[in-house]
Amino acid sequence: MKKLLVSVALAAAFGVQADEGMWQPYQLPAMADELKAKGLEIDAKSISKLTEFPINAVISLGGCTASFVSPKGLVVTNHHCAYGSIQYNSTPEKNLLKDGFLAKNFGEELPATPGSRIYVTEEVTNVTDKVKAGLENKVGNDFYQGIEAKEKQLVAQCEADDGYRCQVYSFHGGLEYYLVKQLEIRDVRLVYNPAASVGKYGGDIDNWMWPRHTGDFSFYRGYVSKDGKPADFSKDNVPYEPKSFLKVSAKGVSDGDFVMVAGYPGRTNRYRTANEVENQFEWAYPEGKMLRERFIEIIKETAPEGSDERIKYESLIAGLANYAKNFTSMIEFYGKSTMLEDRKAREAALTSWINKDSKRQAKYGQTMAELDKLIKESQEHQARDIILGYIGYTTMLPTARKLYRLANEKQLDDMAREPGYQDRDMTRFKSGLERIDRRYAPSVDKAVVLDLLTRYAKLPSEERIPALDKAFGIGKKFDAAKLSKVLDKMYAKTELGDKATRLAWMDKSVADFKASKDPFIKFAVAMYDTDMAQEKKEKELYGKLMKVRPQYMDAIIAYNKELGKPVYADANSSLRVTVGHVKGYSPQDGLVAVPFTRLEGILAKDTGEVPFDAPKKQLELIKQKQYGDYYVKAIDSVPVNFLSTLDTTGGNSGSPTLNGRAELVGLLFDGVYESIIGDWGYDPDTNRSIQVDSRYMLWVMKYLDNADNLLAEMEIVH
Amino acid sequence: MKKLLVSVALAAAFGVQADEGMWQPYQLPAMADELKAKGLEIDAKSISKLTEFPINAVISLGGCTASFVSPKGLVVTNHHCAYGSIQYNSTPEKNLLKDGFLAKNFGEELPATPGSRIYVTEEVTNVTDKVKAGLENKVGNDFYQGIEAKEKQLVAQCEADDGYRCQVYSFHGGLEYYLVKQLEIRDVRLVYNPAASVGKYGGDIDNWMWPRHTGDFSFYRGYVSKDGKPADFSKDNVPYEPKSFLKVSAKGVSDGDFVMVAGYPGRTNRYRTANEVENQFEWAYPEGKMLRERFIEIIKETAPEGSDERIKYESLIAGLANYAKNFTSMIEFYGKSTMLEDRKAREAALTSWINKDSKRQAKYGQTMAELDKLIKESQEHQARDIILGYIGYTTMLPTARKLYRLANEKQLDDMAREPGYQDRDMTRFKSGLERIDRRYAPSVDKAVVLDLLTRYAKLPSEERIPALDKAFGIGKKFDAAKLSKVLDKMYAKTELGDKATRLAWMDKSVADFKASKDPFIKFAVAMYDTDMAQEKKEKELYGKLMKVRPQYMDAIIAYNKELGKPVYADANSSLRVTVGHVKGYSPQDGLVAVPFTRLEGILAKDTGEVPFDAPKKQLELIKQKQYGDYYVKAIDSVPVNFLSTLDTTGGNSGSPTLNGRAELVGLLFDGVYESIIGDWGYDPDTNRSIQVDSRYMLWVMKYLDNADNLLAEMEIVH
Repeated sequence: MKKLLVSVALAAAFGVQADEGMWQPYQLPAMADELKAKGLEIDAKSISKLTEFPINAVISLGGCTASFVSPKGLVVTNHHCAYGSIQYNSTPEKNLLKDGFLAKNFGEELPATPGSRIYVTEEVTNVTDKVKAGLENKVGNDFYQGIEAKEKQLVAQCEADDGYRCQVYSFHGGLEYYLVKQLEIRDVRLVYNPAASVGKYGGDIDNWMWPRHTGDFSFYRGYVSKDGKPADFSKDNVPYEPKSFLKVSAKGVSDGDFVMVAGYPGRTNRYRTANEVENQFEWAYPEGKMLRERFIEIIKETAPEGSDERIKYESLIAGLANYAKNFTSMIEFYGKSTMLEDRKAREAALTSWINKDSKRQAKYGQTMAELDKLIKESQEHQARDIILGYIGYTTMLPTARKLYRLANEKQLDDMAREPGYQDRDMTRFKSGLERIDRRYAPSVDKAVVLDLLTRYAKLPSEERIPALDKAFGIGKKFDAAKLSKVLDKMYAKTELGDKATRLAWMDKSVADFKASKDPFIKFAVAMYDTDMAQEKKEKELYGKLMKVRPQYMDAIIAYNKELGKPVYADANSSLRVTVGHVKGYSPQDGLVAVPFTRLEGILAKDTGEVPFDAPKKQLELIKQKQYGDYYVKAIDSVPVNFLSTLDTTGGNSGSPTLNGRAELVGLLFDGVYESIIGDWGYDPDTNRSIQVDSRYMLWVMKYLDNADNLLAEMEIVH
Repeated sequence: MKKLLVSVALAAAFGVQADEGMWQPYQLPAMADELKAKGLEIDAKSISKLTEFPINAVISLGGCTASFVSPKGLVVTNHHCAYGSIQYNSTPEKNLLKDGFLAKNFGEELPATPGSRIYVTEEVTNVTDKVKAGLENKVGNDFYQGIEAKEKQLVAQCEADDGYRCQVYSFHGGLEYYLVKQLEIRDVRLVYNPAASVGKYGGDIDNWMWPRHTGDFSFYRGYVSKDGKPADFSKDNVPYEPKSFLKVSAKGVSDGDFVMVAGYPGRTNRYRTANEVENQFEWAYPEGKMLRERFIEIIKETAPEGSDERIKYESLIAGLANYAKNFTSMIEFYGKSTMLEDRKAREAALTSWINKDSKRQAKYGQTMAELDKLIKESQEHQARDIILGYIGYTTMLPTARKLYRLANEKQLDDMAREPGYQDRDMTRFKSGLERIDRRYAPSVDKAVVLDLLTRYAKLPSEERIPALDKAFGIGKKFDAAKLSKVLDKMYAKTELGDKATRLAWMDKSVADFKASKDPFIKFAVAMYDTDMAQEKKEKELYGKLMKVRPQYMDAIIAYNKELGKPVYADANSSLRVTVGHVKGYSPQDGLVAVPFTRLEGILAKDTGEVPFDAPKKQLELIKQKQYGDYYVKAIDSVPVNFLSTLDTTGGNSGSPTLNGRAELVGLLFDGVYESIIGDWGYDPDTNRSIQVDSRYMLWVMKYLDNADNLLAEMEIVH
């Protein structure tokens, strides 16, 4: 009844098989022979150097990946990564989402949505020793705070260099720390996007699905000041000239071809323990799915289709639904997998390896037991924590808390403040407060809070938080009607719904907050001590985990070293390289997903209604078999999307997919439904990434959208 | 936006391409070269002779096909074809459906459900001249009645031979008539069926779907009297010894192999006109789907899950849902097809061919116009007729009507009676009345009738039938509450719910009916003259169509003869042979359905709950890779089901699928969702039949059910 989702080899060890692995660039030269055998044609060393081609052409948009594709700073990424900017520039009269947009020259390019950034990684430095120095004897919260202080210090030093954004990334749960220094381009402009009926073809229905026919690409351009430095938007700015850029392949790839991706994958959980796996799949995902689905229901009930409120919540609904679907897949494929058994087996193998040697025993003998104990501790109040966590998705309660936290943090030196409350964070903090106007309706916010607090109130009394109970008048016998009235009054009275008022609170003192009559401000003040105590408790636990998990990873790495296998770190939003092949898979016995979809698939799917409403001109071109320069004989059409074995996850969106010569052959934009669980374990049989084929992108640009200026600007390899 | 569902060649002509065609056996020798080229190894002549191997081993169960697979009358057919018999023999203590059944010897075999028959076709005679003789100048109802009288006469002569059942089949809409004489074996016994969790694996969810993993097979045995004649059930009967039987292949087929099927396909509409296609797909299917879905809803509302009433209606629900799904597919694929354009094009081609020659013009010049006129006439009251038609699916109203019709028909000589009311029909008539006990609940019957009559009452007044309005007190202003009360009273008062009462009415006179106070009997009497007048009007029209449609088909045949192409007749439940190949297809761009499913697919689908609840023993065998004798290297497993291009439809269920040497390699049991529309036009790209692989059948018999006695009895080719 169980399908092997994790390869058998993984059950016995932690080493890497097949095309698994999100590698830090520095790891690649050691794998040169293997990479060459797989199909890499350029020197493995060249993809290990961040400041050299091709890796220096790969950039981060913060949450998405992109790449330079011209000497004049032209950037290609996914349509869904540029979505906010397209929406931002759209009006009822000039709807760029619906109709697409093409700037015919630099002057016509439009400012991206405020806060848009292009991050060019210029340095990655191993700062493990610096971060850990002097903290050997610290534990718990002290250790946590110590690490944080070091990180802030390193970041501040790094950012002293104007125009840069820096961050310390923890690898292997804290075994290693790397400081990443990125040029931060602040003037980002929208250059070209196809119509949503191309760029978002299939919409949410096709999300995570194959077969796929999405033209998920768009173009930005980075601008800098005349002297080449990052600068705020100005008409006088000039296109940024990157050190290198990717050539775009018009030849594309074939079934079985080598491909690689450089990008910024967000987060994976490949080294979580069996206990963590069990709790996550058997408790947290089902519970999260239920809460998300209920959250969506409440929004839909409270804000009917077509109402102004609904428009404000569409993006939250999409986000909630996206992960509800994600969790559903997680639960489904976990049920069919042997993941838990496999984790137990690999832990048993590790334990047995440790126990075979007294030195190892001395070093790692207690690690597993300690880790399990801390994990158990972290799950102790999870039924409550998950509810409080989802309150974090609402608007007024977290906003008031964050504002009051800011007032408190501001009493400290900038360097002593909690990350997120430092001066360097204030631009984002402010734009977060501003955004609320377009994403908040009191009726919806209240209805969701009421539902979550009702769930909270049903928890056993020992799980309840006295300050929270008091704040909402939740007594021994829960009275939903009474709570509803309390909330009604709060939402009626608060002035935080007004943008100017919210922004003004950014500059007020703790005393101002304490004197306020705003019910949400009063709530934040009332909860503060409890919140802080709770956070300290959590940091105490995290601090302990930050000591034990590195030991655990150290054991895993040592064990694999003996087996001759390299170990990659879980994804953490830092730059990684993954290598693989163009390859289909079998989603079900009796069915095969072939690696390429074709233009004709668009005709077959098209219903004329969103999200299957390709432009009429496109349908005509396909009917007339106007394949032009991008015809591929093997499929008797133009390829639209393709599948690869590349090991990717969220954050990789927009990554350039490269052939063995580092030419851009596609843009990664999704994974298949079966590979969602891949965040917890890569299965070579079903882990597949989905790419827009470069030939489809070029076909759309040339024949549908006449983007001749961009085609001329890019270097296209025929 | 349109997908070519009908091959381009068909658009220009009516001739046959690829593996299309349901051939009358006599047509095969003329196609010998083509059949040989496709892969037929035995002489084409041998499959044209009904009384010789292999065709004489293929039998009809009435609605399903089956075949002899041993010299002792062992019969193999689909599990779903034997379903009634399995259910009939099941008790809560001994549930053969759930647990399966295997008779270890003749003595343990169980009587099939009453009325079960095995029909062995022994003669097929072209009786066109006899049927049409002397009717040249008759038209309309006279022609209809004349044909019917001839048919009855031929049948009566044929059935004078004891133990035979005869029927005249009309081909090409009445161009040709064939008298079919079948030995009617009346003692049918259940020999072996796997558990429903094998035989009905996937249930309604997988119905019409691929990938498929259904072990849809069961075994019967025919018994006859000691002197070899058909006889009613008796302990003294002996197994029937067929003239020949099929060998069962343990080697099976591979991708691309030749296969053929002999069976009894029910009905196709390949030669319907463009006007008929348009009306059917754009009006009748959508309307029928809506009425079926509403019918199901009403049953479910009236008879809640778990109620006794619901049990009685499960089979009707299944039937309604089955064709609601069928209609949905029809509508979906019609929308994606160019079927209507293609029909118009082929009619234009035919017309142009006719107009090129004055002789042809004289013969066929008016045919299309006349046919279209009659078709239009037949659709005139379709909005009313479809509602009245669905009243035919209810119980009390049609039962009363049929009983009173019987009383009237009995006043005539047997030969003068309407078919269905002759002495030869009385066994079926009676068992139909008996069955009502297990399939009728007044509350449900009333609710459905109320819904349908309410729809009827909303029709324009000129569509209404005065006698019907009067019977239910439907006035100018419709009063639903009043109608509901009328029906309540009828159901409260009627005694037709009692089996003995119903059966007693079979022997009563017209006068008895007229004197009855039973509200449904009174209804039948009140409607009789109207019903008869309506029937006469319909026969008048049918009689005209029976003259024109043959002309139309004659033109098509002549046209194709010139093109060198044979023409097969639409399916009409008579014995046909179809040839094809083992072949997958692409259900969607980017996906390929491979031709074989594997044992492992059962593991992957299994949820432990109906219909995905394979027996524990089976799951264990698969987990342990106990493939035994039926391992196939190409798929690294045992094949479960396979796809073929065979041109089949309902009625073909249970047909033996044969290889080029006429060995049984599978049992046909379904078609894929995309091929449902195939009843209207065969598309070589998507028309696929689904078979149980003989190797899976043997694997289940040997390793799961230990049916060693049957394996020994059959001749298995290794």
